[in-house]
Amino acid sequence: MRIALDAMGGDYAPLETVKGAIEAIGENKNIRVILVGKEELIKEELLKYSYDVDRIEIKNATEVIEMDEKSSPTAAVRAKKDASMNVALEMVKNKEATACISAGNTGALMTASQLKLKRIKGVLRPAITTVFPANDNKHIVLLDAGANADCKPEYLDQFATMANEYAKVLLNIESPRVGLLNIGEEDGKGNELTKAAFYLLKENKYIDFRGNIETREMTNGSVDVVVTDGFTGNIVLKTAEGTVHFMKNIIKDGVNKSLLAKIGALLMSSVFKEMKRQSDSSEYGGALFMGLNGISIKAHGNSDSKAIKNAILVGNKFAENNFVESLKKVIGGENENS
Amino acid sequence: MRIALDAMGGDYAPLETVKGAIEAIGENKNIRVILVGKEELIKEELLKYSYDVDRIEIKNATEVIEMDEKSSPTAAVRAKKDASMNVALEMVKNKEATACISAGNTGALMTASQLKLKRIKGVLRPAITTVFPANDNKHIVLLDAGANADCKPEYLDQFATMANEYAKVLLNIESPRVGLLNIGEEDGKGNELTKAAFYLLKENKYIDFRGNIETREMTNGSVDVVVTDGFTGNIVLKTAEGTVHFMKNIIKDGVNKSLLAKIGALLMSSVFKEMKRQSDSSEYGGALFMGLNGISIKAHGNSDSKAIKNAILVGNKFAENNFVESLKKVIGGENENS
Repeated sequence: MRIALDAMGGDYAPLETVKGAIEAIGENKNIRVILVGKEELIKEELLKYSYDVDRIEIKNATEVIEMDEKSSPTAAVRAKKDASMNVALEMVKNKEATACISAGNTGALMTASQLKLKRIKGVLRPAITTVFPANDNKHIVLLDAGANADCKPEYLDQFATMANEYAKVLLNIESPRVGLLNIGEEDGKGNELTKAAFYLLKENKYIDFRGNIETREMTNGSVDVVVTDGFTGNIVLKTAEGTVHFMKNIIKDGVNKSLLAKIGALLMSSVFKEMKRQSDSSEYGGALFMGLNGISIKAHGNSDSKAIKNAILVGNKFAENNFVESLKKVIGGENENS
Repeated sequence: MRIALDAMGGDYAPLETVKGAIEAIGENKNIRVILVGKEELIKEELLKYSYDVDRIEIKNATEVIEMDEKSSPTAAVRAKKDASMNVALEMVKNKEATACISAGNTGALMTASQLKLKRIKGVLRPAITTVFPANDNKHIVLLDAGANADCKPEYLDQFATMANEYAKVLLNIESPRVGLLNIGEEDGKGNELTKAAFYLLKENKYIDFRGNIETREMTNGSVDVVVTDGFTGNIVLKTAEGTVHFMKNIIKDGVNKSLLAKIGALLMSSVFKEMKRQSDSSEYGGALFMGLNGISIKAHGNSDSKAIKNAILVGNKFAENNFVESLKKVIGGENENS
């Protein structure tokens, strides 16, 4: 599979993006990476590595959409036609690549992905998936993670159908268990949106619906997919991030204050490493823009080479599994231009 | 101040409730506690302690609303007229007590509090406050924590006014900084509700509005009050709880797997104690039902004596500060029956 990587996207591009591409082709022999961006800069980075030259290509793109782009995402995407993320997405559109990976500006990437790839016919609202860690090294797919701040019940119903297909591929589960994120587990709990969505989900023939689920219970692994509106999904992600940060700070402060604790922390380093690994978003290979007529994956802005590599591997996995075709089957349409 | 304590409410009642009352009068000489519940059981518990008998009273109440009450909260509150929480609230209504504290069934307590105390005239929707930990041992007041799953912008605007008064008393701050919980910091971000609430909050003359705040930033202490709808507030609380639990599990698993890590954990015990303390809800003295014509505080269902004691101290603080009168001034009304 040929994967187009926005080599200029992310806080540590092109250093970590190029390194991630090299790592990805080292890990999976079926992958070829097209590094999209400023040719001279990419060539310079590539000099650092020895690699299978047949499996790394460069596609020159003269512009870059900055992480802190001053203009609106839409304006930036339209103004910089030759921006690396635009060119990478164009390659997916033209079937020159099977997936686009970018750690660049989220808003711009979302806009560009929709403009270039268009939504699949029948998709009410494209959305952002993310993967949330659960106990025992399990993972939960969360949709929508932030694309649609205001949702209708039918959107949530369709998010469930799409996230279900996503979980099948990503988690290798035949029949994922789907839950509706809510503030109580009993039927009839929640706000107007979740109350109405509950009844649609109960009737959704594509999914194994397990009812309402509370965030407190998300990590116990009782479901594989959690559906919510983009506002709530984003709040969940950022609350979890903030809480992890808060706890790490307490540990760090305590260790700095006491020599005994410092020695203790050294002895516990394997545990803290595991904690970092399990609470680290770079393990999960990025967020997919769901509902589009092609695969576009957003890696975290602060991605290191490992996060980029994982995003490439995930992109490749979805491409190999003909994910977009599977989505079209359950949504029942072609792309919106057809 | 005379505080009515629902001695039968909570997972460990009356053992921990009675113990908490004894601890409270030991810590603050201005407090008298009325233990409301089954007289015989309470007397039996009291035998365990030596205390100032003038500052502990018993008010007999023959019924108990169970934590897992089968009928609806409203039905339970209406059917069990002589339930301990009903009687305790009745005492506040009749000015025989200045505050009611209960660790009992949340839904029932919320219903009973509204039925007995009525809302202050002008209050659009009573709400639940909670206190969230932030870095450097700071605390943030969050409103609404779960009473109103569906909110209008005006509710959020009034929540801000009420939470502002609350923070003044609880955190001893003259001019609390108020933020609107949102999924982006820029003006104009969010869903329809937060976008509309933002402009009302900007014009709210009672508060020092600092704009949108993300949950990831809540713990850095940049604001003292965070306003949100009850659905989102509840999601935030339960996500934080779930994340703390998740991280503790990873640490526990790791420590159980390695002798070195076990020794490390022993050396770090002061740090873990601090982590527990800072992430422990029992430190903050419970949640106040905001907007009612009297003080009613909900302690966590699994409260131990320390949590009960803290809730009593907080209830006393609000009573001493004439909190309800302050609220009436900013809301501009009397109670709804007047």
